[in-house]
Order: sequence, then structure tokens, then C-alpha cells
Amino acid sequence: MSFIDVVLGRPLASDEDHRQKINVKEGIPIFGLDALGSAAYGPEAALTILIPLGMVGIRYILPLSAAIIGLLAIVYFSYRQTIEAYPHGGGSYTVASQNLGLYPGLLAAAALMIDYILVVAVGIAAGVGALVSALPSLQTHTLTICLGILVIIALINLRGVRDTGWAFMAPTYIFVGCLMAVVVVGMCKSLLHVGHPTPVVAPPALVPTTGAISAWLLLKAFSSGCTAMTGVEAVSNGVMAFRDPKEKTAQKTLTVIIGVLMFLLAGIAYLSRVYHVGATLPGSGNYESVLSQITGAVLGKGIFYYLTIGSILTVLSLQANTAFADFPRLCHALAQNGYMPRTMANRGRRLVYSQGIYVLVLLAGLLLIAFGGITDRLIPLFAIGAFLAFTMSQAGMVAHWRRVGGHHAKHSMLINGLGAIATAATVIVVAISKFSEGAWITLFVIPGLLATMVTIRKHYDKVAEEIEAPMPLSVENLCAPLVVVPVEQWSKIAQRTLRFALAISKSIHVLHIDNEECTSDLHDRWQELVEEPTRKAGLPVPELVVLKSPYRLTITPILKYVLEMQRRFPDRQIAVVVPDIIQKHWYEYFLHSHRGKLLALLLVFKGNQRISVINLPWHLEEGSVEAREMSAQVAERLSRQRAA
Amino acid sequence: MSFIDVVLGRPLASDEDHRQKINVKEGIPIFGLDALGSAAYGPEAALTILIPLGMVGIRYILPLSAAIIGLLAIVYFSYRQTIEAYPHGGGSYTVASQNLGLYPGLLAAAALMIDYILVVAVGIAAGVGALVSALPSLQTHTLTICLGILVIIALINLRGVRDTGWAFMAPTYIFVGCLMAVVVVGMCKSLLHVGHPTPVVAPPALVPTTGAISAWLLLKAFSSGCTAMTGVEAVSNGVMAFRDPKEKTAQKTLTVIIGVLMFLLAGIAYLSRVYHVGATLPGSGNYESVLSQITGAVLGKGIFYYLTIGSILTVLSLQANTAFADFPRLCHALAQNGYMPRTMANRGRRLVYSQGIYVLVLLAGLLLIAFGGITDRLIPLFAIGAFLAFTMSQAGMVAHWRRVGGHHAKHSMLINGLGAIATAATVIVVAISKFSEGAWITLFVIPGLLATMVTIRKHYDKVAEEIEAPMPLSVENLCAPLVVVPVEQWSKIAQRTLRFALAISKSIHVLHIDNEECTSDLHDRWQELVEEPTRKAGLPVPELVVLKSPYRLTITPILKYVLEMQRRFPDRQIAVVVPDIIQKHWYEYFLHSHRGKLLALLLVFKGNQRISVINLPWHLEEGSVEAREMSAQVAERLSRQRAA
Repeated sequence: MSFIDVVLGRPLASDEDHRQKINVKEGIPIFGLDALGSAAYGPEAALTILIPLGMVGIRYILPLSAAIIGLLAIVYFSYRQTIEAYPHGGGSYTVASQNLGLYPGLLAAAALMIDYILVVAVGIAAGVGALVSALPSLQTHTLTICLGILVIIALINLRGVRDTGWAFMAPTYIFVGCLMAVVVVGMCKSLLHVGHPTPVVAPPALVPTTGAISAWLLLKAFSSGCTAMTGVEAVSNGVMAFRDPKEKTAQKTLTVIIGVLMFLLAGIAYLSRVYHVGATLPGSGNYESVLSQITGAVLGKGIFYYLTIGSILTVLSLQANTAFADFPRLCHALAQNGYMPRTMANRGRRLVYSQGIYVLVLLAGLLLIAFGGITDRLIPLFAIGAFLAFTMSQAGMVAHWRRVGGHHAKHSMLINGLGAIATAATVIVVAISKFSEGAWITLFVIPGLLATMVTIRKHYDKVAEEIEAPMPLSVENLCAPLVVVPVEQWSKIAQRTLRFALAISKSIHVLHIDNEECTSDLHDRWQELVEEPTRKAGLPVPELVVLKSPYRLTITPILKYVLEMQRRFPDRQIAVVVPDIIQKHWYEYFLHSHRGKLLALLLVFKGNQRISVINLPWHLEEGSVEAREMSAQVAERLSRQRAA
Repeated sequence: MSFIDVVLGRPLASDEDHRQKINVKEGIPIFGLDALGSAAYGPEAALTILIPLGMVGIRYILPLSAAIIGLLAIVYFSYRQTIEAYPHGGGSYTVASQNLGLYPGLLAAAALMIDYILVVAVGIAAGVGALVSALPSLQTHTLTICLGILVIIALINLRGVRDTGWAFMAPTYIFVGCLMAVVVVGMCKSLLHVGHPTPVVAPPALVPTTGAISAWLLLKAFSSGCTAMTGVEAVSNGVMAFRDPKEKTAQKTLTVIIGVLMFLLAGIAYLSRVYHVGATLPGSGNYESVLSQITGAVLGKGIFYYLTIGSILTVLSLQANTAFADFPRLCHALAQNGYMPRTMANRGRRLVYSQGIYVLVLLAGLLLIAFGGITDRLIPLFAIGAFLAFTMSQAGMVAHWRRVGGHHAKHSMLINGLGAIATAATVIVVAISKFSEGAWITLFVIPGLLATMVTIRKHYDKVAEEIEAPMPLSVENLCAPLVVVPVEQWSKIAQRTLRFALAISKSIHVLHIDNEECTSDLHDRWQELVEEPTRKAGLPVPELVVLKSPYRLTITPILKYVLEMQRRFPDRQIAVVVPDIIQKHWYEYFLHSHRGKLLALLLVFKGNQRISVINLPWHLEEGSVEAREMSAQVAERLSRQRAA
């Protein structure tokens, strides 16, 4: 068992696919981590906008959360329908491109790709940020820890979908369990005290009201709170990964995820209202997250508190995993249609789309490195991608229902249309309110990505058209190539090269470079060494061409000669035989010139279709065995000649 | 004119060699910079050892300098003789290996190589160190400036020997002129004041005597002062670079260099005696170099003072250039004998041994980077290499005279023997007194380098023996190779690959990978596409082999099949035709899989001698032209068939 096998697991055959299928229990961590983790920052984001309103702001958190939960419900029903309509995976790309056309589909894909890359970088950075603020001694290692987590998540994902579920199950369920416990206990306490519970640990006092309430402020709070909805589309994208009946399993998974998320959002909103918990200014000295305040108020700061906070940290940094599950699937779908490099369509040794994982790791890693592991500022940006994808997907579903028809169509169109309008409005609000904070980057990158995808497809179309062959093999005008053999000096390598050339063709040009510095007797001995034996055997005699090289170059004269032949014989194939010494040990590499490789490269790039390169390896040491055999043959022949 | 031509000059033909030859005036900066620059630190090094003796120490500088000058005289006469005896370049390596045998020669070579690398790193670092102590604002850019100077010197040297001379002429002659002026004026003043001149700017007072005089201290001071002699061997190494009559020109150059050096050493010693100039502790707050003190004392600190100090800085950092002139020559000589990689024996586009320059830049650059541009501690180390080389060279000359004989032989042997003993004693003194300061590194690296050189030679000998071919070409048992053609799908590329295979051989195996994921109709249409046309034309029918690949691998099954064929047909050549799509633009590279290249690589490394790889490029876009022609041919054929 190799090292790779231990780390990544043994390769899986294509027909072992079913063993990799997942059930609801495993599906929640894989596709739900992103959505559930959002509960940790969605309400907080909305409350942060409301800080200037002080006590007045807290009053608005319940209606705001109700609006978000309502939107979530619309999105939920929409995606339930999508799963049923697209059992092969109905991500925003598929739905939008099939119902709205090519460009809306690619727009959704581009938005999602950017969203996923940002989720990975930002999620890991946020988790590690929370970790190092708890353990300040790790502060200097922020970037290293970020990259470490990135690599671990990537390795787990390279092992395949099923192993991923197992790895993330414990943190996800601890997170959900703790938060639900807090919400349930808090609600009971509140009911017992008729809506006025006494906090175990009192949250910091709210700042006095300084700002005035306005529709714009509430809209901003709503759009910030909508980050709680990111990651909801994941399940619909990965229906194929579920166990049969896959649509039902996927729907169940989605129901559980959204149900838990709604419960948590409602609970958090209610508790922050009754316990008077507001957001504190991030970066200020007495910052404490909303969930930390609520947990402390409900259950005090004992062991359970630390378990809860620990699970929040873990889920925040593992959230990235949802992107790992979906990004490669999206790339695969795009690659199959020719909008991404074809290699992304191949499944790797463990039946996952390894190439997409590599690309995601690379881009997210570069983002982390570029921002030194601190990417908090990018957080507002990635909501745009997610909501743009929601909008495209729901608009697509509207078109779908109009096309499909049926007696539920009107009702379904209404739900999806509502969702599309709501999410589109959110995109516009986020884009405008966050434009100067960096949203312009996303709005700039998306069209670029779109253009790239279209260009890739155009390239493939051109190539396909170019190499398309409707006809059977043509066997007319078959003609052995003109073989060009560069020979430096008379050696066993030269002998073997010539023998190969004689075996495949009748026209052979032997090139010998005369650079006035190293002398070789090849020219003088040509008659004896090559001409006589070939003539005697009735074979065509190879032609010796001596090329002068006053500038001590060896490759250029050969290249020039071959290109000259290409011009002179416009309808002949030309094969250049390049012998190459293969070393047994890497360090011997430096002891031999690698002109052969360079020549081959130049011939391929400077030559045209008709020039091919034949690489004839000479394996050191192994060669000596063959050499002895050759000598034996020659000796035998000589003795026979003498006998005759 | 290309960018490279502007920076490095146009390429020079081998017969333009004479235009690159140099005269005495140009020879002094090229081969003398190292030796002359030594005047700036040799006397200072000796005086530094004498600091504890205070005023008493100053008294010993004259006899010590006399001893060093005497040794220099011996070395001078020795190298004069060497130049005459070895007109093709009599470096320590040549002299020692020809007279003492292989290993002493290689020992001298290894010692010199280390010396040269250290000279470059230490010289540049010392020059830049002096510069940044004059202009402290540059301190933070030390390493950048060091590497910049290294690159500039390398570029100048890559232009060729002659251009180098011109570039370094001005700094060298200003340096020599200034120092000689200081010495002459100082001596005149001293004579006018009967040995008690009044300094214009008084040097710092000498520290009171704290140590006692001892033979060991004097020996240490002598060996430190001997660094003034490094670089003296350079001329004898480069006799071939001089204009005819080259021995005479080289000897004249050597005479001028040594004459000036002796004059400067004697003058500096005399002036430090009469002006009571001692060394100051390096690194202490009131450090001032000996030459700075003397110049100030003799001529005051006006414009001339700054010109002198500036020229010293320049020469210190350009000193590295001597190593650039000699190191590549040494590598060339070693490479010609097979003790260094062969490519080092080739002269580059400007008739210099470019490869040696690259290696020197690389190693010196790494040293500079490793020490952050501050390599002062390495200064004592490089004297070992230089004196070890002197010793080997002079011992070699002793053996030379014994062999050659003649009526001057006894006299010459005496001079060279004296030199050998004196320099050998210096090596031992330096090695012992500086052992713990780092000399052990040199003593450790030299045997390693020696072993490497011997190993390289052994490798070449083995290869030469292996590929040696005393016999003419054997044309028996010529047999076209078994051609293996991997085909993914029926396309123009597949057609062309098959046509090539049919043109060179009668036995063709077409491999098709069936990985259950992408479907191709090749198997079903084989009969129609390939079998029928070939059979009709009376050609051998290629055999279709379908390989199952449950793990979705494409390369491994092909590789396995080829290795299986290699085992099954132990006396056949096997040629694998690998088609390759050549992109017009670099960014298109990522759009096509590069399995072909990987397959070719694996075949070469896993296969044996009998497996060769034929690379058949398909140039995108250009291909379409050929494709059109092919289609036209097919159409024509069809119309003919119809007509028939």
C-alpha cells in the first residue's frame, strides 16, 4: 500500500460508485455545513447594522428575521421543486442554462464559482480569526494555520464524498445540538418568566440610540442578514451524490437543513430580543459575538459555553467544505459542456473530480496568502455571488414551470417568481450598499469569468471542427518519411540510430556538425563505416551532410536544415531521430548535454505538421548489455566472413 | 538586433578569436585587479593582529612586509617561469597535474575553485560593506546592491574578455594612480623631515601596549598579511587570452602587476611606520582603515582623499572580476579532461566559457544570499585555497625542472622549492590559526569537491566504454518496429497517426481505452473506418486492441500493454506513436490534456532500449489547412470511384 493510498485511500473503480453514495445523516454535514454555519454570522450581521439604533434596533430584529425566514421558505420550496425537476443535479447553472439560455446559465455559474472560492478563503480565515482571538499566542501563525486547514479539507475531499461526511459529522452535530439546546432552554426560561428572563451572565449594556430609523437602514440590515442564507443551494447541486431514491433523500436532507436553520434563526432573534442582546462593534476592545452573549445569558459561561463556542469555531472553518463538495461538481458540469478545460470532466482515483479540487485549493490558497490569512473584508462580497445564483436559478424555475405546465404550474411559478424578485432585490441592495467596500470587484470579475468560459468553448468548437473526420482512413500516397539523423560521433548510439532509420525508411540524411573546435573522423571514415556495409547489403545508402557551425551552435544548424527540407519537399513527412542518453541517477542528468530535448522542442514548435520527432532512448548500463550483444553479432559475422 | 545582442554583444565566430586577444594595458585590469586590490587589505590584516602590541607592533610592520615582499618575489619568479613553460595556460591545475600527477592536480583545482567562489562573494560584500559604511542610508539594501553588482560583473564577462578589460580599466588605473601618489608624496615629505613628517590629519593615537611579542603572534601577522598575495596566479592561468607573442605579453603584464603591488606594499609599510599609523579594531565605533589614515596623514581629507577612498571601494568590489576571468577557464580545462560536466568545455556565443560564468554567479549568489550580503567572516578562509594552489603549482614546477633539466634547472628548482616551502608553511599556519574561525569548512569542502570530480570522470569513462563502436555499421536483422498507436476517438489526428504508422511498418497495434465513462464508437466502426480501406489497398490491417480501464486511467493501461509487448517480443523494436496537439497560444495549453507527454516520459523511463517514442504534432489552425487538403483528396477519390 503506497503512501498515496494511505492518505487518499485506494483507487475506486467506476462501478464502485454506489458505495460512495450518501444518506441523509451524511448529507447534512456535507451539503449543509455552509448553510447551518451561516446561522453563526447572519443574525449578527443584521444586528451590527442596527447598532446605532441601540435599544430601538433590537425591536426590529424579530420582523427582520421573520422576513429572512420567509425568504428562506420561498427559496426552500423553490429548491425542493428543483431537486425533483433535475434529479441529475440541478444547480443554478443547470437550471438557468436549460430554462433561460446559455448566457444566464454561465452568469449563474460564474457567480457561484466566485462565491465558492470566497467561501473557502473567508470561511477558513473567519474560523482561524475566531480561534486566534481566543488563543492570542497563535496570532503569528494565522496564515500557516489557515493553509494547514485548507490542505486538510482538500485531502479529506480527495478521499471522496463518503469519507468527507464521516469526518465532518461530529463537529456539525455538536454545533447543531449545542445551539438548539441554548435556544430551547432560553425559550423555556423566557416563557417561565413571561418574556423577562434574568440572564445568567448579563450581556454588555446596549449603546444609547444615536441614529434614526430609516427604510434604507432596515434594507441594509435585511441584506446583511441574508448572508444567513448562503449555502442553501448546495443540496440541489449534488443530488447525484445521494443514495437511491436520490431525489427523496436529497429533499429530506434539504428539509432537515432548512428546518434546523429556520429554527436557529428564529430562536436567536427571539433570545436576542428578550435578553436585550445587541451586536458589539467588531474590532473594538469589548467585542463579544451575539451567540457568545446569548449562550452566556441563557446557560452561563461554564463547560457547555466553551463546547458551544468551540463548535462554532470548528463549523466556521469547516464551512469551506461545502464549497469543496460543490465547486468541482460545477466545474465538471461546465467542462462536460466545453466551458472549462476538458480535464475537469474526468473523475479522479477516488471518483471525485480531483482537478476541480486542485483549482479551488490553488485559488483559495492564493487569496489567503495575498491577504495574509485575514480576509474579513471579503465577507460582504460573497453574498452577491450566492444571491445572483439564487436569482438565476429561481428565474429559471419560473421559465421551467411555464414550459412544463400542469395544474400546479401557476402556484409554483408564483413561489419561484416571488423568490426571484426577492433575491434579485437583495442582490441590488447588497451591490449598492457594499459597492465601495469591494462589491465592485465581484461585479468586475464575473463578466471576465463569463468571457473566459465562452472563449474556452469557442476554442474547443474550432478544434473539434478542425479534427472532425467523417471519412474512413485514406491510404493513398503512403510514403515513408525522410529520416534525418544527427550524429555527433561514431558510437554504438549512432549505430543504433542508423539501424532504426534504415528499418523504417529508404531516404536517410545523416547530419554532422563541424564546429571547428572538436574534431571527429566521421567524415573521413564514412565510406568504411556506413557506405560499404549498406551498399553490400543492397540497402539505400544514407547521405552524409556536414554542416559548418562557426558560432559553435549545434541545434540551430540542424533546425535550419530540417526546415529547409520541409520547404524543399512540400509533400513529404520528415522524421528527425533524436537519440537521448537516459541516466540511472538524477544527479547524472547534469553530466550530459540535453540538446536532444531542446531540438525536439524546437522542431515541434518551429516546424509544421509534417515534422515528427522520434525519440530513441539509450539507457546507460542497460545499454551495455545490448552493446555486448551487438559486438557478439559483429564478431560472429566477421568470423563467418573469414570462414567464407 | 535582439535584446540579447545589445546586452551581451553579437555572437562571435570561432575564427574571430584573435580580435578578443588582449595586450598589457588591458591585461592589468583583467588579471591584476585581484592582486592589486589585495594591497588594500593585506597590510591592514597584518596590522590588525599587531594591535595589542601598540607602538611596539608598528616597528614590526617593516620586517613583516619585507618578508611578504620577499615571498612575493619568489612567487613572481616562479610564475614567470610557469608562463614560459606553459604557454597554453599554466594554472596551478595544469602544472600540478602534469608534473605531480592526477590527484595533486585535482587538489589544486578544487582549492582554486573554492578560492574563486569565495573571492567573488567576499570581494563584492567587502566593497559594498565599505560603501554602506560611508553611506549608511543604503544599509538596508546591502544584499540587493551585492546581487546587482554580481549580475553586472557577470554580464560584462559574458560579453567577452576584451570588453571586460575596457570596463575595468578606469577604476584600476585610478586606484593604482591614487595610491602611488600617496606613497610618493608621503616618502618625499618623510625624506624632507628626516623620517619625522607632520601628518596633515593626525591618525588616531595608538592603543597602549597590552600584549607581549611572540614568534606565534608574528607568524599569525605574517600569514594574515599574506592575503596581500591572493590573485597573483591569475595571469599564468590566462596566457591564452593575451596577444602574440603571448608568453612575453603575459610576463610583461605579470611584471607590472607584481612590481606595482610590491611598491605599494613597501610604501604602505614605510608610511605606517613613519606616520605611526596602526590598525583600529574593526567594528568598533572609531574604526578607520589603514589606507584612509595614511591618505589623510599624507594629503589631508580633501577631494583627493575622497577620490582615493572611492577608488578603493570600487576596486574591492570589482576584484571579483579576476575570479570571473579564471574560474570558467579552470572549469573548461577540467571539463576537457572529463572532471567537470562536458558542457563546460564549450565556448559560448562571445567565445567565453559561459557555463562556468553561470555556475560562478549561482554559487557566489547563493553565498551572498545565505549570508545576507555580509560575508566578512569568510575572508580568512579564502587564503587557504589560494596558498594551497600556490604550493601545488610550485611543487609542480620543482618536478618540472627536475624532468626538463638544463643548466638553469638547479637555480630554478631552488627558487620554486623555496616558494613551495614558504607557501606550504603559510597554508599550515593559516589552517591552524583560523581553524576554529571557519577554515575547517574549506578543509572539509576540498576533499568533497575532489571526490565529485573523480566520480564525474569515472562516469564519463564508463559511458565512453559503453558506447564505443570500433566496428562499422551492422545491417543484419533489420526489422521495422512494432508500432503502437493509442487512439482516443476517430478524428483527423487519428487518421494521420495511422497513415504515419502504415508508412513505416507492417505491424500496427491500435490501442483504444474503454473507461466506461466516455463512449466512443471506434470499436463498432473499426471495420468500416480502417479494416476495409487497408484490406482493399492490400496493406497489412492494423489490429485494434480495446483496453478496459475501470479506474478511469488512460496512461497506465497503455504503458502496461507496451511493456507486455516488450516482454513478449524480446528482439523487436517497439515504437509508440504519440500524437500531440500544439497550441498557438500559451494559454491554450491548459485546455488540452497532456497525457501524451506524460506517456512519452513514462515509456522512456520504464521501458528499455527497444522502446522508442514518435512524437507526431498536430498544429492547431495550421492543421485545418492540411485537413482541408486531406478532405479534398478524399472527395477527389470518391468522385473518381464514381466515375469508374
